[in-house]
Amino acid sequence: MASRDVAIVGAGQAAFGEREEGARGLFAEAVRECFASVDKGVSPGAVEEAFIGSMAFGGGQLGNLGPGLVEQVGLSGIPVRRVENACASSSFALRDAYLALRSGGVDVALVAGVEKMTDLGSERQRYWLGVSGDTEWERLAGTTFPGTYALMARRHMHEFGTTRDQMALVSVKNHGNAALNPKAHLRKAVTKEQVLRAPMVAHPLGLLDCCPVSDGAAALLLVRGERAQQFTDSPIRIRASAAASDHLALHDRPTITTLEATVRAGREALRQARLKLSEVDVAELHDAFTIAEIVALEDLGFCPKGEGGPFSDTGATQRDGEVPVNPSGGLKAKGHPLGATGAGQVAELWLQLRGQAGGRQVSGAEVGLAHNVGGSGAACAVHILSR
Amino acid sequence: MASRDVAIVGAGQAAFGEREEGARGLFAEAVRECFASVDKGVSPGAVEEAFIGSMAFGGGQLGNLGPGLVEQVGLSGIPVRRVENACASSSFALRDAYLALRSGGVDVALVAGVEKMTDLGSERQRYWLGVSGDTEWERLAGTTFPGTYALMARRHMHEFGTTRDQMALVSVKNHGNAALNPKAHLRKAVTKEQVLRAPMVAHPLGLLDCCPVSDGAAALLLVRGERAQQFTDSPIRIRASAAASDHLALHDRPTITTLEATVRAGREALRQARLKLSEVDVAELHDAFTIAEIVALEDLGFCPKGEGGPFSDTGATQRDGEVPVNPSGGLKAKGHPLGATGAGQVAELWLQLRGQAGGRQVSGAEVGLAHNVGGSGAACAVHILSR
Repeated sequence: MASRDVAIVGAGQAAFGEREEGARGLFAEAVRECFASVDKGVSPGAVEEAFIGSMAFGGGQLGNLGPGLVEQVGLSGIPVRRVENACASSSFALRDAYLALRSGGVDVALVAGVEKMTDLGSERQRYWLGVSGDTEWERLAGTTFPGTYALMARRHMHEFGTTRDQMALVSVKNHGNAALNPKAHLRKAVTKEQVLRAPMVAHPLGLLDCCPVSDGAAALLLVRGERAQQFTDSPIRIRASAAASDHLALHDRPTITTLEATVRAGREALRQARLKLSEVDVAELHDAFTIAEIVALEDLGFCPKGEGGPFSDTGATQRDGEVPVNPSGGLKAKGHPLGATGAGQVAELWLQLRGQAGGRQVSGAEVGLAHNVGGSGAACAVHILSR
Repeated sequence: MASRDVAIVGAGQAAFGEREEGARGLFAEAVRECFASVDKGVSPGAVEEAFIGSMAFGGGQLGNLGPGLVEQVGLSGIPVRRVENACASSSFALRDAYLALRSGGVDVALVAGVEKMTDLGSERQRYWLGVSGDTEWERLAGTTFPGTYALMARRHMHEFGTTRDQMALVSVKNHGNAALNPKAHLRKAVTKEQVLRAPMVAHPLGLLDCCPVSDGAAALLLVRGERAQQFTDSPIRIRASAAASDHLALHDRPTITTLEATVRAGREALRQARLKLSEVDVAELHDAFTIAEIVALEDLGFCPKGEGGPFSDTGATQRDGEVPVNPSGGLKAKGHPLGATGAGQVAELWLQLRGQAGGRQVSGAEVGLAHNVGGSGAACAVHILSR
């Protein structure tokens, strides 16, 4: 690999779910698994710098969380910072590590994401979830995230004829995949009827259209291309790291059926990778709500605008379909520990591209795409990886 | 300038102090001044990416703060993230932008820091300040930041004979400098007697040994070296960007009279810059408490360990001394809006190295050093700049 290439040589995840461990324990678990996954081994002392994505959900260690985490795994001393972009925090941590490695100033970097969400009561959870949306016009007016995405879903139904059945199929697929993922929060298949009959959260989104509140952590070991062979003969190359932002509040955007940040980041990622979307073999998309996967399919260009519902309906996004989406189970069923989600998507792709994804393996996957959104679309990062 | 060099071509600050504006307004004020400071002008559209340091003190917009800020200055759309390392947040944002520019993937980046602190009542302020120290063993046991630094001060007095008079002189010097800085929070000179007789906060630190709680923002425009001439004929070059971490809790460190993160980052910065400390003409050091400036002088190597007090006593750190320290007034008197402090230090050096620091100008300053600490030393970043 060329010196300006960046390779992922290790990946680990603390299982997503309602966990007994706190943020520090979850972080250490993911990092230990990451280190253990390095084919030729790695000494923690090789890590030169760390980039950690987290919302610091619930408070506690809102300042200097980075140093407080790396000392758990014997890395006290190295430069570390927390990177925050709500639900996309660790994808931006990944981007910053990627840029640092490409600068030549850092050879080996740890990227991690962590979130401990379940310790809070539901009122505090609502507060901490709300603060990733627009505070002034949305949260303080009573809008929650299911409410925000419900607005998008209803408009999408109105403009394009998308149906609840089509959304439900996203949930059925992702739950089915999660059932095969030992790191997933909701490891159970659901039927379309169960999704449609689940308690309503914010019409048209029922309980099974919404991701759960999860604890979790994920870690990735990145090295400069020229160092990759030292750690593994099967590195995964980061072909593109692209990102964009958008207005926080929905009412400031020209449309709510497109996430413009996804469109921009997706386009830029393909340009960087010099790939066509048709060359992507597997994708982890940000499906905090079922409608979000449908909109992401359109915004990234897997299908034309408005056709995400029918496209899903054809089975194209199934594990054996044209473009398998969320083999991990996605945010919907694998779980969504905010700051850990992005790094977790990439950890899944790392397994998929190395053929190590067990029962949920996408056959012959060589190119993977991870799409991670902050809040209701105010931030987006897209990474493309390949063998 | 070479293509891998990174130049600062603009800098701006919202005055530190108790301000009416919220975080968004303070940020916009600093960015507008930054853009206006660019000698040959800049169109906001030139900015490709933004790195924003903030604790998001007080909450409100704890998630996606970055997108919520850049949309205030017409930059919605660009990639942006919040970088957090407590009081050193924007120095790490600066480091990340520096690495991004050196990667070649970004040509023009905005670095900013912002904090709105004064809107909270004192109890909430104490919580938000406390969460940058160790939560489990320090904050929940009742330790505050003045208490933490008081422990360091008392131990320093015990080990090295440092006196309250010596600490007081740090305050006198920095207040004297702040009186000449229109952006400073506490623009008034104080006498040694006033410092010594001020109400005790945590012995031996009195009120005038402690930095104030301030609102503020600062912004820097960074470009790749080869682009610098497009913006100014007087760019300031970033010669080094170094950082380190340490254990969060004081009791985990082998000594509390040295901040090991400062030692490491300082040494690495000089190595990168290929400079001797004696070549530094002006320094902005992290003086959240007077003892902190004394310890930083030692840890960076301006004087031997234990001699920071006597060294200050000689007048060496005065504006016309051997190594002028904190001509801005420092955290002590310019103010300490956590996330804004690091970028503010660099904005001061930018003025100093361009000879634009007015009444507090350090004569003939060509090389400047900025030293910014997170919490009680869990994180540290050191940057060296030159004309």
